[in-house]
Amino acid sequence: MSNKILNFGIIGAGRIGRLHAENIASCYRNVKLKSVSDLYYENLHEWAGNIGIENLTGDYRDIINDPEIDAVLICSPTDTHAQISIEAAKSGKHIFCEKPVDMDPDRIREVLKQVDASGVIFQVGFNRRFDRNFRKAWKTVREGKVGDIHIIRITSRDPAPPAPEYIKVSGGIFMDMTIHDFDMVRYLSGSEATEVYATGSAMIDRSIAELGDIDTAAVVLKFENGAIGIIDNSRKAVYGYDQRIEVFGSKGCVTVSNETDSLAVISNESGVWSEKPKYFFLERYKESFIIEIGEFIESILNGKKPPVDGIDGLNSVLIAKAAKESLLKGKPVKVEL
Amino acid sequence: MSNKILNFGIIGAGRIGRLHAENIASCYRNVKLKSVSDLYYENLHEWAGNIGIENLTGDYRDIINDPEIDAVLICSPTDTHAQISIEAAKSGKHIFCEKPVDMDPDRIREVLKQVDASGVIFQVGFNRRFDRNFRKAWKTVREGKVGDIHIIRITSRDPAPPAPEYIKVSGGIFMDMTIHDFDMVRYLSGSEATEVYATGSAMIDRSIAELGDIDTAAVVLKFENGAIGIIDNSRKAVYGYDQRIEVFGSKGCVTVSNETDSLAVISNESGVWSEKPKYFFLERYKESFIIEIGEFIESILNGKKPPVDGIDGLNSVLIAKAAKESLLKGKPVKVEL
Amino acid sequence: MSNKILNFGIIGAGRIGRLHAENIASCYRNVKLKSVSDLYYENLHEWAGNIGIENLTGDYRDIINDPEIDAVLICSPTDTHAQISIEAAKSGKHIFCEKPVDMDPDRIREVLKQVDASGVIFQVGFNRRFDRNFRKAWKTVREGKVGDIHIIRITSRDPAPPAPEYIKVSGGIFMDMTIHDFDMVRYLSGSEATEVYATGSAMIDRSIAELGDIDTAAVVLKFENGAIGIIDNSRKAVYGYDQRIEVFGSKGCVTVSNETDSLAVISNESGVWSEKPKYFFLERYKESFIIEIGEFIESILNGKKPPVDGIDGLNSVLIAKAAKESLLKGKPVKVEL
Amino acid sequence: MSNKILNFGIIGAGRIGRLHAENIASCYRNVKLKSVSDLYYENLHEWAGNIGIENLTGDYRDIINDPEIDAVLICSPTDTHAQISIEAAKSGKHIFCEKPVDMDPDRIREVLKQVDASGVIFQVGFNRRFDRNFRKAWKTVREGKVGDIHIIRITSRDPAPPAPEYIKVSGGIFMDMTIHDFDMVRYLSGSEATEVYATGSAMIDRSIAELGDIDTAAVVLKFENGAIGIIDNSRKAVYGYDQRIEVFGSKGCVTVSNETDSLAVISNESGVWSEKPKYFFLERYKESFIIEIGEFIESILNGKKPPVDGIDGLNSVLIAKAAKESLLKGKPVKVEL
Repeated sequence: MSNKILNFGIIGAGRIGRLHAENIASCYRNVKLKSVSDLYYENLHEWAGNIGIENLTGDYRDIINDPEIDAVLICSPTDTHAQISIEAAKSGKHIFCEKPVDMDPDRIREVLKQVDASGVIFQVGFNRRFDRNFRKAWKTVREGKVGDIHIIRITSRDPAPPAPEYIKVSGGIFMDMTIHDFDMVRYLSGSEATEVYATGSAMIDRSIAELGDIDTAAVVLKFENGAIGIIDNSRKAVYGYDQRIEVFGSKGCVTVSNETDSLAVISNESGVWSEKPKYFFLERYKESFIIEIGEFIESILNGKKPPVDGIDGLNSVLIAKAAKESLLKGKPVKVEL
Repeated sequence: MSNKILNFGIIGAGRIGRLHAENIASCYRNVKLKSVSDLYYENLHEWAGNIGIENLTGDYRDIINDPEIDAVLICSPTDTHAQISIEAAKSGKHIFCEKPVDMDPDRIREVLKQVDASGVIFQVGFNRRFDRNFRKAWKTVREGKVGDIHIIRITSRDPAPPAPEYIKVSGGIFMDMTIHDFDMVRYLSGSEATEVYATGSAMIDRSIAELGDIDTAAVVLKFENGAIGIIDNSRKAVYGYDQRIEVFGSKGCVTVSNETDSLAVISNESGVWSEKPKYFFLERYKESFIIEIGEFIESILNGKKPPVDGIDGLNSVLIAKAAKESLLKGKPVKVEL
Repeated sequence: MSNKILNFGIIGAGRIGRLHAENIASCYRNVKLKSVSDLYYENLHEWAGNIGIENLTGDYRDIINDPEIDAVLICSPTDTHAQISIEAAKSGKHIFCEKPVDMDPDRIREVLKQVDASGVIFQVGFNRRFDRNFRKAWKTVREGKVGDIHIIRITSRDPAPPAPEYIKVSGGIFMDMTIHDFDMVRYLSGSEATEVYATGSAMIDRSIAELGDIDTAAVVLKFENGAIGIIDNSRKAVYGYDQRIEVFGSKGCVTVSNETDSLAVISNESGVWSEKPKYFFLERYKESFIIEIGEFIESILNGKKPPVDGIDGLNSVLIAKAAKESLLKGKPVKVEL
Repeated sequence: MSNKILNFGIIGAGRIGRLHAENIASCYRNVKLKSVSDLYYENLHEWAGNIGIENLTGDYRDIINDPEIDAVLICSPTDTHAQISIEAAKSGKHIFCEKPVDMDPDRIREVLKQVDASGVIFQVGFNRRFDRNFRKAWKTVREGKVGDIHIIRITSRDPAPPAPEYIKVSGGIFMDMTIHDFDMVRYLSGSEATEVYATGSAMIDRSIAELGDIDTAAVVLKFENGAIGIIDNSRKAVYGYDQRIEVFGSKGCVTVSNETDSLAVISNESGVWSEKPKYFFLERYKESFIIEIGEFIESILNGKKPPVDGIDGLNSVLIAKAAKESLLKGKPVKVEL
């Protein structure tokens, strides 16, 4: 590995932006957190000081226009991702962009066009690919251990729904939540979805329906390579964050169950009790957030293709869009590729 | 319990008919296996002698017309079930009929009409309801422990596809294999399916497609009570008979995984090895076949409603029919109720 | 297999005697339950009638002296086992004797002398060897899959202690409870114990100490082949009957955990709940009681050595005796072989 | 938490010393790694530079005598621990000392005397107490969830024995390996061992016997509070690092099984395969090494008692000494308290 020190800028210091910053400070000595931008940057001085961030600003363009900055992490609200990505690419910055890149495929295509033209690295924050369990499942599939893929199943259930204000701008469950699963089935299958059937309703909270969204869903995907993908989502599993995958094929099946807070098992008069799954994504995918940044850094230093790129960002949104349409129409919809 | 000895007749001594006979001989002292009919009855003398069957015949009507016979088990080929049921009901015999009752819902309605008119017990052989694991899951749901049901998932995979000659007359995967899962989701949900989306193809064996069937399927069901059912089937899981269910709701989730031949776990340089699931239905559901007959006997003796009745036999076939149609049309189909 | 019908007599119709009788009636058509003897035989008429037993008597000699009887199952109180075995052997009856054969090794040697002289089959009721899980572990070891055996561990805990009247005549925990584990380590190791260290106390119930017994114990055994055996016992595990074994060696490790009443797993706000182990030995070892009788029958029909013989009966008692002595002396004791 | 920056010195930069240094650099911003001493310090410049260590020296006294240094981590060879601890205490430095403090209890008592006199924090590196799984088990016991403790079982098996040169100076398996388990049973039981019975031999490698040590052991401990501890050790489990604990009591049982590298489970024709346990202590106890240092830092900042202190360091060695004696004598030995 190179001895080069990279200068990073982080645009948007909400929960995810701060997590990336802290991980970089702890784990990647070859990256300097030169600048962080956020609308509410005045509140961030203590936090920034603790982890050695040099500059705080309220304007992301201070980062885009800083010639020393090698790469930016775009962690601002979704509706800003595309614009900032385009400006960053024009400015020759490598880009790590949180999901989704945008809810409009055409807007994403604009981003990818600029990224191509500028020749910068563009990586999308589908962190679950970097989870050691899912990575092991993917590796198992790639090594041919399940043979031809027949059925991929994903269960993804959150411990609690987001706040109504969030739901209003989230783009709906498929764009906000299932999009991770769309990326995961693409990753596991190594193929593209051709058709989507999506159904569901607001079973947990009627107010979610009033906001035009659903909280419980089932999605069936058909893939180019013949595989079938089956996803079930819920915005509220009272027992925690349920994240399970399964790839079934001609030679076998690989499954991944839930990580827990400890392996302690208590047996008593009432039964045999084990821990619930880890509570939510920050706990469950803690290491994956670290690893995805590490691979982004490697891509920059080695000129390698990023592990999750703009096409992954685009195609997951195309599936989400088709899923939304299928839910409305009540029948399967082809995925525009 | 009564001291009455019941006389049973078994119509059809194929694998399932002989299994029921042997279970009755071993476990139910209050039932006499008076007669067994089968086209190939001449080959059955030694078997029949071993378990104390009095009469063997090539003509089922010898059983139907025998005034001593209290009840019949109809285990003959599917296309004879309806006719024999009607005759048996007319003759005042209680009836245990293997699944499916018939592939034509109207024909089933004729059977049920006669059964009602005759006032006999009519139980359908959906044995999985009597599996202790699935029964525990059902009980858990009925006790309200998962709350309102949101998602029911079933994975049902056979170790190997049936012979081509069987596939030709099976009525297709939904009528032959998934029908057990249709009954199970009705049982678990306590509700009726209103709509079915089914998809799939012949991924294991192209010749199955040539026979007009598929071997891999995904089915999404909508229920009257709002629950979503998701079923995945495969005719060939190389690791054995995969039979898993899950009911997820507002208060929690109950799952059932696969029974194995032993609990021995071997750890060595290669990993940690556990037993595969039990091979196929005779091994996996061994006790359920015994229990379903026991509850049939109890219904007769106590005049109780049978645990699985004609409506269950009809409605599962209605779902199967709708699934077939959905597969052909490529979109969801309403279930005729 | 032969077509011969064997005539069995059961001596002692307590819980275990009745269980053997019922299993034979259900499962072994080639055995006729000709006679059952018990001090309280007058109460057994309905039970005996239900399962087809021909004769009931209060005097076991009616069975011993009946020339038609081929074999006897000795299920009477422990202090009668030796005497009845000797008489039965003299009378040319094959013998299945419940454990322990006797608490006095010399008395057992008298029995074995008579058995040898008479040339009858003598099998001891160490049923756990016939449990499919432990049998699989044993097979795994014999196939060399764990290599040279280094450590064998057994945890054996009852759901509740026996009644004080029983404890008084039980011979103490090692003779009554741990003796199964002594047999199991001999079975798994394929070797003989040379030295025993046993310790323990009455942790559950002080009154057990007043009866001169203990309720919690740890035993370390050294084997001729170098293996170490480690056993822990408790008379009261509130979560049920805990029966786990492990054989660790140069090439790996095989473990067996507890069977449960069902595989249902419930996840909710409090955690992930699984079933407790099956309650006690009748539930947990149900099939083993059937199989051990089956192998006894086979030994008789085929003239094969029984799978558990008099030496097994003797050597387990020798270990139990040494364990008692070790507990008293507070140091290891050599096993007299 | 205080804003104070502590200056640490690390004495001994072998594997464990470097691990502690790297963890501090990554995780504890309020600690400056001012100095590191090691005989081979010339080779450490690049490593030291990467993690921001200011000074490297070949003489630990440069650290002891540095008035700026607040605390030292003693990670040098065992036979230097006591001397350096005494000097460090005299110099007013807080001390984190790797296990064992010394193999001679009297020498440890000298250390503790100086530590008391100097009023410094003295923490011993029994990191497993900080493992989240074992901590959860401990918490479960302390909350009374298993009731009165009856039996504590520990299985601790390494993937491979140490090199012969190491074995020669290790003090033997009880002082080097089982000492962790002695500390763990003290931790879990909340009591002191009164008597030890230890047995074992060189089953894996005869050359270990030639070095006067054993590689396979069983230890039975009696505790003041009546509990029995049972430990089994092996220097070579081919399937990895086997670290399991169990606490069984009057109200239930808590067990902890092995962490694995991933939760991927592969089912195929051969069976159901899961990952082996994590390979060795650096992998398995990765977080515990971080947490133990964190709690050491807190003790310094808050003046709290350290979570593992000199008494823990002494009493574990007393048990190890008694175990050695028991192995030689072939009988139980009282622990000198």
